[in-house]
Amino acid sequence: MRYLTIRELRTAAENMPFNKLIGVRVKRRHADGVTIECVMRDELRNTAGVLHGGVAATLADAAVGIALASHFGGRRACTTTDLKINYLSAVAQGKLIARSHLLRIGKKLCVGRVDLTDGQGKLIAVAIVTYMLL
Amino acid sequence: MRYLTIRELRTAAENMPFNKLIGVRVKRRHADGVTIECVMRDELRNTAGVLHGGVAATLADAAVGIALASHFGGRRACTTTDLKINYLSAVAQGKLIARSHLLRIGKKLCVGRVDLTDGQGKLIAVAIVTYMLL
Amino acid sequence: MRYLTIRELRTAAENMPFNKLIGVRVKRRHADGVTIECVMRDELRNTAGVLHGGVAATLADAAVGIALASHFGGRRACTTTDLKINYLSAVAQGKLIARSHLLRIGKKLCVGRVDLTDGQGKLIAVAIVTYMLL
Amino acid sequence: MRYLTIRELRTAAENMPFNKLIGVRVKRRHADGVTIECVMRDELRNTAGVLHGGVAATLADAAVGIALASHFGGRRACTTTDLKINYLSAVAQGKLIARSHLLRIGKKLCVGRVDLTDGQGKLIAVAIVTYMLL
Repeated sequence: MRYLTIRELRTAAENMPFNKLIGVRVKRRHADGVTIECVMRDELRNTAGVLHGGVAATLADAAVGIALASHFGGRRACTTTDLKINYLSAVAQGKLIARSHLLRIGKKLCVGRVDLTDGQGKLIAVAIVTYMLL
Repeated sequence: MRYLTIRELRTAAENMPFNKLIGVRVKRRHADGVTIECVMRDELRNTAGVLHGGVAATLADAAVGIALASHFGGRRACTTTDLKINYLSAVAQGKLIARSHLLRIGKKLCVGRVDLTDGQGKLIAVAIVTYMLL
Repeated sequence: MRYLTIRELRTAAENMPFNKLIGVRVKRRHADGVTIECVMRDELRNTAGVLHGGVAATLADAAVGIALASHFGGRRACTTTDLKINYLSAVAQGKLIARSHLLRIGKKLCVGRVDLTDGQGKLIAVAIVTYMLL
Repeated sequence: MRYLTIRELRTAAENMPFNKLIGVRVKRRHADGVTIECVMRDELRNTAGVLHGGVAATLADAAVGIALASHFGGRRACTTTDLKINYLSAVAQGKLIARSHLLRIGKKLCVGRVDLTDGQGKLIAVAIVTYMLL
């Protein structure tokens, strides 16, 4: 079995249309997950001028999906079945960084936890995401 | 107390930067919530070519936020504290419609349920979203 | 295929050890789910003297599990994979009633929503529960 | 401000009626949370003969509640507002151990993550629980 190089993983993830619209960047690959990020820009704000909750949810979803692509070498199709995110603090500027940890890789279901931090390392949200292997 | 007209509500919601990027449209106001939608386009797709889970999460978040803006006449600032969404089916084309039902309007916390359907009325996701009044 | 009678369903559900400890009773079978309940007693209280959140979570879990037992005639083993509950109001006495609605019955995953009310019909919690068929 | 001794914390937590019914034991206090556990017994089983999901949900809820009692010295009343738990593996016997980590202690809302393991240290569930300070 051949694994994806970090460059291949990055290309696959960053060219997914919605990830591209948001501006998702793959930063690192870890033993149990990945670190991805996006940079705040005006299009990602809500009425209060801070990062829209949907952007953080998108990053949480992507951080687990990309970790699974890395784990399976991109050879297993999968789809999100549930996502839960708790918002702890608002992000007004800078980066939003999502670090996923795969907690369970089953025959049908895979579960990951995602810690989302700002550029200063402050925890701003935490998520649990489930994917079903197809 | 003056309520927002549907036109004012629509203008406020649709001009929020991230809602605009996604293409959120406010369709109807109900006694207990709102109906909003977005139309599928290539930028909203994931690797599998279907609607990215982050778009559905964004619509769920927005459907409760806009319902609260309608309920409070836009005079109460609030922020999402938790969002949970279960994906039931994929959306390949057409519309994604989100109908929110406010279940609790408390002094601090407000909770809404959101049923997400495609253009044929098929239930494709269900969400529960909590907002904290600031 | 033979369906369970309501008596068979009741016997199976109410004799499950933990359901028995809590005092779960099966009240009605609906086209899309079931109604179950338990009666408040001192053992089910928390420090504040109201119903412990774990009891409501247990009822939510059971309401979907029993609905699936009813749907499949008790012939499909299944296990809870995720449960999310939002507490809207405290219950100090009387009944806790859980009405499940099966939203999706898939080949692998089944999802149900549960509305939990007190004896006066007040919504006190809402849950979404996923089961995996084994 | 006087903190609770571990003995006081244990007494308060273990005498809460529902915790007592389940058999919750407080094992350790950490800088950011607590470790609690319960021992499997027949009354806690479901139809499949393994630990009922409601027991794990109860432990998750309790692990965050007891961590907050420890943090605030038992002087702040609080109530669970949402709980989400993902079940990763079944527990057939032995202990269920819940280790909470307080992620956010706000003026209104407190959020904790709970890792649930069996007696061999295998991760069997993960939860996120929110409490509102009253």
